[in-house]
Amino acid sequence: MFFASDNWAGAHPDIAQSLVTAAGGFASAYGASDLDKHVEKTFSQIFERDVAVFFVGTGTAANSLALASFNRPGGQLFCHREAHVNVDECNAPEFFAAGAKLVPIDGPAGKLSPDALAAAIGRFPPDFVHGGQPMAVTITQATEAGTAYTLDEIAALSEVARKASLPLHMDGARFANALVHLGATPADMTWRRGVDILSFGGTKNGCWCAEALILFDPGKAQQMHFLRKRSAQLFSKSRFIAAQFDAYFKDGLWLSLARHSNAMAARLAAGFEASDTARLAWPTGSNELFVILRNDAMKALQDKGAVFYDWPAGPEVKASMRADETLIRLVTSFATKQTDVDDFLSAL
Amino acid sequence: MFFASDNWAGAHPDIAQSLVTAAGGFASAYGASDLDKHVEKTFSQIFERDVAVFFVGTGTAANSLALASFNRPGGQLFCHREAHVNVDECNAPEFFAAGAKLVPIDGPAGKLSPDALAAAIGRFPPDFVHGGQPMAVTITQATEAGTAYTLDEIAALSEVARKASLPLHMDGARFANALVHLGATPADMTWRRGVDILSFGGTKNGCWCAEALILFDPGKAQQMHFLRKRSAQLFSKSRFIAAQFDAYFKDGLWLSLARHSNAMAARLAAGFEASDTARLAWPTGSNELFVILRNDAMKALQDKGAVFYDWPAGPEVKASMRADETLIRLVTSFATKQTDVDDFLSAL
Amino acid sequence: MFFASDNWAGAHPDIAQSLVTAAGGFASAYGASDLDKHVEKTFSQIFERDVAVFFVGTGTAANSLALASFNRPGGQLFCHREAHVNVDECNAPEFFAAGAKLVPIDGPAGKLSPDALAAAIGRFPPDFVHGGQPMAVTITQATEAGTAYTLDEIAALSEVARKASLPLHMDGARFANALVHLGATPADMTWRRGVDILSFGGTKNGCWCAEALILFDPGKAQQMHFLRKRSAQLFSKSRFIAAQFDAYFKDGLWLSLARHSNAMAARLAAGFEASDTARLAWPTGSNELFVILRNDAMKALQDKGAVFYDWPAGPEVKASMRADETLIRLVTSFATKQTDVDDFLSAL
Amino acid sequence: MFFASDNWAGAHPDIAQSLVTAAGGFASAYGASDLDKHVEKTFSQIFERDVAVFFVGTGTAANSLALASFNRPGGQLFCHREAHVNVDECNAPEFFAAGAKLVPIDGPAGKLSPDALAAAIGRFPPDFVHGGQPMAVTITQATEAGTAYTLDEIAALSEVARKASLPLHMDGARFANALVHLGATPADMTWRRGVDILSFGGTKNGCWCAEALILFDPGKAQQMHFLRKRSAQLFSKSRFIAAQFDAYFKDGLWLSLARHSNAMAARLAAGFEASDTARLAWPTGSNELFVILRNDAMKALQDKGAVFYDWPAGPEVKASMRADETLIRLVTSFATKQTDVDDFLSAL
Repeated sequence: MFFASDNWAGAHPDIAQSLVTAAGGFASAYGASDLDKHVEKTFSQIFERDVAVFFVGTGTAANSLALASFNRPGGQLFCHREAHVNVDECNAPEFFAAGAKLVPIDGPAGKLSPDALAAAIGRFPPDFVHGGQPMAVTITQATEAGTAYTLDEIAALSEVARKASLPLHMDGARFANALVHLGATPADMTWRRGVDILSFGGTKNGCWCAEALILFDPGKAQQMHFLRKRSAQLFSKSRFIAAQFDAYFKDGLWLSLARHSNAMAARLAAGFEASDTARLAWPTGSNELFVILRNDAMKALQDKGAVFYDWPAGPEVKASMRADETLIRLVTSFATKQTDVDDFLSAL
Repeated sequence: MFFASDNWAGAHPDIAQSLVTAAGGFASAYGASDLDKHVEKTFSQIFERDVAVFFVGTGTAANSLALASFNRPGGQLFCHREAHVNVDECNAPEFFAAGAKLVPIDGPAGKLSPDALAAAIGRFPPDFVHGGQPMAVTITQATEAGTAYTLDEIAALSEVARKASLPLHMDGARFANALVHLGATPADMTWRRGVDILSFGGTKNGCWCAEALILFDPGKAQQMHFLRKRSAQLFSKSRFIAAQFDAYFKDGLWLSLARHSNAMAARLAAGFEASDTARLAWPTGSNELFVILRNDAMKALQDKGAVFYDWPAGPEVKASMRADETLIRLVTSFATKQTDVDDFLSAL
Repeated sequence: MFFASDNWAGAHPDIAQSLVTAAGGFASAYGASDLDKHVEKTFSQIFERDVAVFFVGTGTAANSLALASFNRPGGQLFCHREAHVNVDECNAPEFFAAGAKLVPIDGPAGKLSPDALAAAIGRFPPDFVHGGQPMAVTITQATEAGTAYTLDEIAALSEVARKASLPLHMDGARFANALVHLGATPADMTWRRGVDILSFGGTKNGCWCAEALILFDPGKAQQMHFLRKRSAQLFSKSRFIAAQFDAYFKDGLWLSLARHSNAMAARLAAGFEASDTARLAWPTGSNELFVILRNDAMKALQDKGAVFYDWPAGPEVKASMRADETLIRLVTSFATKQTDVDDFLSAL
Repeated sequence: MFFASDNWAGAHPDIAQSLVTAAGGFASAYGASDLDKHVEKTFSQIFERDVAVFFVGTGTAANSLALASFNRPGGQLFCHREAHVNVDECNAPEFFAAGAKLVPIDGPAGKLSPDALAAAIGRFPPDFVHGGQPMAVTITQATEAGTAYTLDEIAALSEVARKASLPLHMDGARFANALVHLGATPADMTWRRGVDILSFGGTKNGCWCAEALILFDPGKAQQMHFLRKRSAQLFSKSRFIAAQFDAYFKDGLWLSLARHSNAMAARLAAGFEASDTARLAWPTGSNELFVILRNDAMKALQDKGAVFYDWPAGPEVKASMRADETLIRLVTSFATKQTDVDDFLSAL
């Protein structure tokens, strides 16, 4: 009953096998192999346009490079207060961007609202040199709260960004989970709604280490080669990242895996909703659940071996919690077994 | 006949298989799994003392983190002019260390001499605030010229560093190749000769992506956790790096692979020495060869499909070259076949 | 009727004259002159202990160097949301500290409360590598809201910082104004209340360019020499900064100037309180006033030539404002004439 | 007999008086005062075209901002090995440019040659991501060796830079000295010869703290406002820097001061040339002299109270020196008295 995180799972057998297949023979290093080129083309097909693809090793690297690529001196980056870039990356974005500032914005259920975003940007009028200058907006899809922005919500945020001439970055560490939740296409959830650059995550959804930075305007990709190398994220045997993505995309494996983990999350959610010791903090839009749980129920679950984390509650949730309750997070993955879910719910 | 680089090879079958084995089941993320802990202990056994181990994704990351960990404002880092950190890492060391300067030092055959090192350090007297302050010394073993420092040479350099109170870093991208060339133990080639921190490379010797930073004083390791994470080098599914090292060390695989690639390089070297169109720029001490080759012979080899790079010749080599000659580099690997070597030499 | 800022004033005649006196003759550069040394000793006398003194050119430099000197990778710096370092320095602190994050904390009247500070620090448990690590606390005295922390309030904040093993920085851009408001000694308002490092501002109080970083533990000053030089803040003709401070401290000039500007602010405050078109947002504790003013009164004042800025109101103030009101800031200085104050109040 | 450095002199009386004049009254802060605007226009007149002017506090700041403004990831900056930016700024350029590398190039008499520059640039072919990318060329006029580039030499270097699409920066810490030595106009010595950005120094020539960054293409100036502020170099009472330049330029004072210090240097040079215990290392082109002096003569001079520095000799000079000789540097200034020069030469 492992619900601590989707990165506690290993790698899907097809992806592991693809690494074995790629192990033989000689190939150009540093991203120049045939397999690298093939997978780059696959990305363009999936997104229905030419994209520039940069493989990197971690989601933090993808996010930090994306933001750094937009940086200017005194740059202000707008994000949700609980965004991964703001609270879970140990200042990597600030470091990669040579001292950029993340401007944290509040919003319920892990989401930025267009009004709050516009207000935050509005504090930095053009030429106000003391305050610095807006640099980019970043959103997370699915969000850190396990919710998913609707396509309209993404469009509304990108409209605010565009009005301020700011590029829009999407942290897609759980891109596939949000995608299948919405039933959208990759193009619809990104560039057709104004997203300029995407951190496309494979690791949490069944790869062992496969992250890609996707630039929807390949004409702006030149500097990224140097930025990535300078950040020690250019892998010599890059073909092994390509090999993972190759299996990931084959026959829609990535979508199947995301559907499975979402289904497991939904099954958990239904169980919690039927319970009288727990309730959902928000409806889930991915493979993450945030649950307000009675402390005695939490202890009972842990005693039976369930593994999950408690989570710091923001003001909006805290206001609705009683003293004998705790906010917990559960994450399912491609490897979550239905029997584990059912055992967990029985224990509940 | 692929002699372009050892990172054109894939992964050894045992290592690829180890990734498959590690793919199943749930395990703690971010380096806390049992397998991570097990491999860390293996490193301590190999080095005959407690060491702190930090897995990272690339050799550039290992080098840059090592140097950054010693950084102070105005820090000067002493290295060979042709060191990988100086000419092949796109300023990653300078960036990771927030603007440190690499002070390039000349020296024949890719090696620093103690006198040249002492003279370079001597240009920065204590409290000379305009010039900055010495920060660390870094050497490469095997060197960028394919040579290997003897144990005495390492000790002599570390003596210079210690007198200046400077830590000594070793870039061991080809650590195993130098080790088996010298017939030394890992402890003898490092901390027993005064090395403080080591970039231990597995990738060039049969792994797909396995690099480790080894701190010989674990008491100084605390900050490295934050430094690594801030640099986007903390892998969530870290166990897959551990799995590679686990197979790498099993039954001395790593030493066998290095012995094989060194033997292939030696066979090439013998062939060149017997030739009248080529001569070695230096004796080889690893799996890299630098050869001064007549241009017509080079062309003939390339026409027959041999893949290798020409290389910029430093002043010392250039002085010994004729106009119709080129300096080339050949690199063998665990995957180099003896038949390819023999075919190459026949073509020569 | 210039109330835009205290940096719109020029320099006090005694300080200007001191620059003339210092202009003749030869003297050691880079802070080694007799005058530099003399003024450093004066600082030690004023603070009743040995202090290390570093002259710099701007308050932003002093603040940024102070914070950078405490930096560690992933460093989190705790400050008030409206702190100058957070909203008016164009990311200089983040840049100088190689990507440190300023953690903004809300609090009424420009002040941090001990509880809010402790809660903010508490979000970064030791060894939580994803979140980063607490680095320092910074407070502003007088605050950005024109208020002044009491000595007890400073002590309470430093107690929170000490419990978390964090150094405490004080931004003293308006140090003298707070000091004379409290009637405290420099020692009482700083190190006796747990302040570790101080940005001591002279510019806003009658110098043209005289800022000093004061380290209350001179044993920790060694690195600051390099940090300052690397930040381009080591002035070759440093004696001219010393000359300003020399006149500034002579016969208590600095305290007289601060008393004057505070008195002018108090006179303005009394006038506003007697008015029916305005009220103070907070009681003033320095030479800054924040006033909620009826828009028609504001316009009338501006039409008569009064110069001041309107100011973004935080949520606490906004809630108390009517639609026809604006929050404005007025700043007095050593050069403010009582007749200008009286003319302004008449116009009101 | 102070010949240690031109920054041991104080400030010219006219410039000191200008500070007094500027001390009264209120004026817009942060560079928006009438006096700031007036002096900016003066710069445009002096350079015979519209220029963008940014006042900063130190020459290191001017140089570092100039280079940082051109920075791209993995940026390589080409300079003379003995350039101030490379050996006397404690890594400020590398820090301001977030880890740029200074590529040191050898050359006699402190000068870069076009061939050596082209060769250095040539080591970084386009798209060679491992090596990084060329970013800018910087030269010093007058050079660190006290020599001055001729106009043709500047043009030849800018031609090399332009062919590589690199901007050219001139460190003009002793701009006026070189200018009057050549008898050139400011325009001829800069943009008419291909210089893109200039560090214009006033401090060493009679100001106390007046440096300006001059951009010959004002259309590229927008980012510099933020870059300067982020580097803590935006002075609130900027008018005091303007006031210095105002007096500096009035009636050609700056040129008179430079002529005087050059004349004093020439008088010293003539004396050395007539001596049998000394010879010039190079002909002087400014107010700096480098002299190879017999040790006994050096000691005699120091015993009589002459103040100057010995200097590290590069290989070219060292080869011409005997064991009983030392390389020394002498610097004259606007304040150097002819009697001091004559006393010095008598002592010699």
